[in-house]
Amino acid sequence: MKIYRKELWFHLPARRGLVNITPQVEECLRESGILEGLCLVNAMNITASVFINDDERGLHQDLEKWLEGLAPHEPVSGYHHNLTGEDNADAHLKRSVMGREVVVAVTGGKLDFGTWEQIFYYEFDGQRRKHVLVKIIGE
Amino acid sequence: MKIYRKELWFHLPARRGLVNITPQVEECLRESGILEGLCLVNAMNITASVFINDDERGLHQDLEKWLEGLAPHEPVSGYHHNLTGEDNADAHLKRSVMGREVVVAVTGGKLDFGTWEQIFYYEFDGQRRKHVLVKIIGE
Amino acid sequence: MKIYRKELWFHLPARRGLVNITPQVEECLRESGILEGLCLVNAMNITASVFINDDERGLHQDLEKWLEGLAPHEPVSGYHHNLTGEDNADAHLKRSVMGREVVVAVTGGKLDFGTWEQIFYYEFDGQRRKHVLVKIIGE
Repeated sequence: MKIYRKELWFHLPARRGLVNITPQVEECLRESGILEGLCLVNAMNITASVFINDDERGLHQDLEKWLEGLAPHEPVSGYHHNLTGEDNADAHLKRSVMGREVVVAVTGGKLDFGTWEQIFYYEFDGQRRKHVLVKIIGE
Repeated sequence: MKIYRKELWFHLPARRGLVNITPQVEECLRESGILEGLCLVNAMNITASVFINDDERGLHQDLEKWLEGLAPHEPVSGYHHNLTGEDNADAHLKRSVMGREVVVAVTGGKLDFGTWEQIFYYEFDGQRRKHVLVKIIGE
Repeated sequence: MKIYRKELWFHLPARRGLVNITPQVEECLRESGILEGLCLVNAMNITASVFINDDERGLHQDLEKWLEGLAPHEPVSGYHHNLTGEDNADAHLKRSVMGREVVVAVTGGKLDFGTWEQIFYYEFDGQRRKHVLVKIIGE
């Protein structure tokens, strides 16, 4: 059994943002030498998501507006969590919708994806260093 | 280590629909000969979900109404993504709520489920051929 | 390859409630003797979630209020599922938002977590015995 682990680091300039991390995960897979198995990619911070969808700019705008409707940032004082001095309660909720992690099959040394599947890091509380874990097991 | 991979194909007659795919995944598990491990089942299209819940018709109607409330199909022009010529932005959002994948434990050659757990394929943009990946690793 | 399986049981006194199950999952990992691999933790009931977020009381209150807004318990008669005699349709929907399962990397015999990551069991239809599966594979 082969095991691989790497952390990817991000520091986004704005509060929110989307990064296509598929090339970085593919690079991890190459480094691992694993041909068959499972690849876990998860946010290590609890105000960010890793998810799979389309790399289409209009869709990303739609996600932004939709999530802001489901869990608005303002009013900041509307959330109990923000009484701790934070202003990121909405980020915890948005991340709950979009999810913490993805598990991707590894087949023939590649991420076993449909045509349009791409892995994204979704930052909901940026302007600081945050990380994502890539763990691959297989052979 | 044993590895198994199969694609399941679907072509639903309507825009949306639910299919209980538990028997098909169980058949995959039998074919694999794997007794202990993990079974990943994921949509390979980004406008569909794989999720686990109850096989109860009323609940499925509730899911339909609820998801349509959270991410309505109409007005189609209300989504940036639909400026690409698509009309399926809502499908991408609904799939974000319901999730892309499930990971199921394999124990003693069976899907290790609670009493009511059933695996569903949820189509949000049908009337075309789409696929689901089953990848099982273990021994 | 090493394999470990355990069920954790819960009986919460109220309809809804959150339990930090990280210590119990860590105990499972110690028992397993597995140093490297993947750890699946999933609800075996379809009206409960397992998810990862912050162990902060204010956030948990925010989650409660937010989920009740997205999928209200009342009116019970507003859901088709409740025509079966159940009153827990909202629990199925809330669980769909929060997810069924988490997959956690195991590294050096520990759950490979960021600073604030904690695993929670989220009960949406309590006052009865329910269970969670921990399945760990690796070496």
